[in-house]
Amino acid sequence: MSEPSDIRIVLVETSHPGNIGAAARAMKTMGLGELVLVNPKDYPCVEATARAAGADDVLANARVVDSLAAAIADCQLTFGATARLRSLRWPVVTVREAAGMAITERQSSKVAVVFGRERTGLSNDELALCQKLLNIPVNPAFSSLNLAAAVQVVCYELRIAALGDAVHEPERPEEEYAPAGMIDSFHAQLERDLVDIGFLDPDNPRQLPLKLRRLFIKARPTINEIKIMRGILKGLSRKRNATDA
Amino acid sequence: MSEPSDIRIVLVETSHPGNIGAAARAMKTMGLGELVLVNPKDYPCVEATARAAGADDVLANARVVDSLAAAIADCQLTFGATARLRSLRWPVVTVREAAGMAITERQSSKVAVVFGRERTGLSNDELALCQKLLNIPVNPAFSSLNLAAAVQVVCYELRIAALGDAVHEPERPEEEYAPAGMIDSFHAQLERDLVDIGFLDPDNPRQLPLKLRRLFIKARPTINEIKIMRGILKGLSRKRNATDA
Repeated sequence: MSEPSDIRIVLVETSHPGNIGAAARAMKTMGLGELVLVNPKDYPCVEATARAAGADDVLANARVVDSLAAAIADCQLTFGATARLRSLRWPVVTVREAAGMAITERQSSKVAVVFGRERTGLSNDELALCQKLLNIPVNPAFSSLNLAAAVQVVCYELRIAALGDAVHEPERPEEEYAPAGMIDSFHAQLERDLVDIGFLDPDNPRQLPLKLRRLFIKARPTINEIKIMRGILKGLSRKRNATDA
Repeated sequence: MSEPSDIRIVLVETSHPGNIGAAARAMKTMGLGELVLVNPKDYPCVEATARAAGADDVLANARVVDSLAAAIADCQLTFGATARLRSLRWPVVTVREAAGMAITERQSSKVAVVFGRERTGLSNDELALCQKLLNIPVNPAFSSLNLAAAVQVVCYELRIAALGDAVHEPERPEEEYAPAGMIDSFHAQLERDLVDIGFLDPDNPRQLPLKLRRLFIKARPTINEIKIMRGILKGLSRKRNATDA
């Protein structure tokens, strides 16, 4: 596992400083920290810092430049993000494919993902500086993805790609699961008790034992949980015997 | 392909109305529309509507209830979202695994994803109402994922799972790609011209023709682009002959 901290995020002519702060926060939650701002309209700004909510270091380290070309001058692989497929002349990849490529290539190439203006995105001249167009699939009936939300989705995919298999950590219960034999002997006790109280007819059990077993197997009980269930059966049986006596 | 519109999003005791609006926008961009609010602190509110930015219909249709139990009373599969793995007593799945399960099971089950309070998340009593804990992998050093950003990531994964293979639409260029034979004859012409000007030695070509072929094959040129390149060669050749004459 390694953080996707070396992938650069570039925001072109962002209008709302709040979006810059929210983008910085989105980046940092996913382990990114390299932000470049191309001609931000209103920056630095108290609103950006407020929305960064603790990711101020990302803002403090952000570089401000006056052209996209300057922002990516040292990059060998640049993705231009878009929610709409406005132009199909550029090679388009999904955000997931892009994240996979970025993480694969970052060993040998400096990688950047570029986000355009809130309303109008990236110009054709800016797109021409990108090797690939990165598409976030959106609802065609409502494609108004917020800028920081788009950054969040991209950085999330970069993190997942960077973590690789590390993200799929196996479930670790605090307690050990019950082994099959333990569950089996619990069921044997349960069935004896059910016969005992006349709920289960041993000559005509129908599917009752099977259904009970299926219920507990689905729950994947821990050793402790089986012990609790056995305790309950024991307690019920003792009560029954006391009443019978 | 079918939109994930039947998956319910539940927000529990949201403090900031702006987050409710931003969550509605996040939902709609990904094709979701069913929002239930459990005891929102300040709602309805003009800030929620402002941040919804066109997803007002999601807010207008949102149900407000007074308990999580009421919000999910009709649900058969409920995920509780968390950015932190605070408790491992619940079965934990990644957001991607959860999205896959949700889309697989929605045929037979009503599915909800529940998001807790901005600062404190879901209580243990609330988690106990969820079949699974849905984990969004975050930077352990900065796990402060904004509520609407978390909703965005979850809805994005639901959309990708719902679209299935439809999301991987093949690249469709506006123009037809050049067939191999066409590219080949272009290279033949190019090489003849390079010999003609003394740039390529036919007896000792080194790797030049190969390198040129590799350059163009990587670009995956369209028919029109090859025609343009052939036109350029022809023009250069005509110029050359005129100068020689």
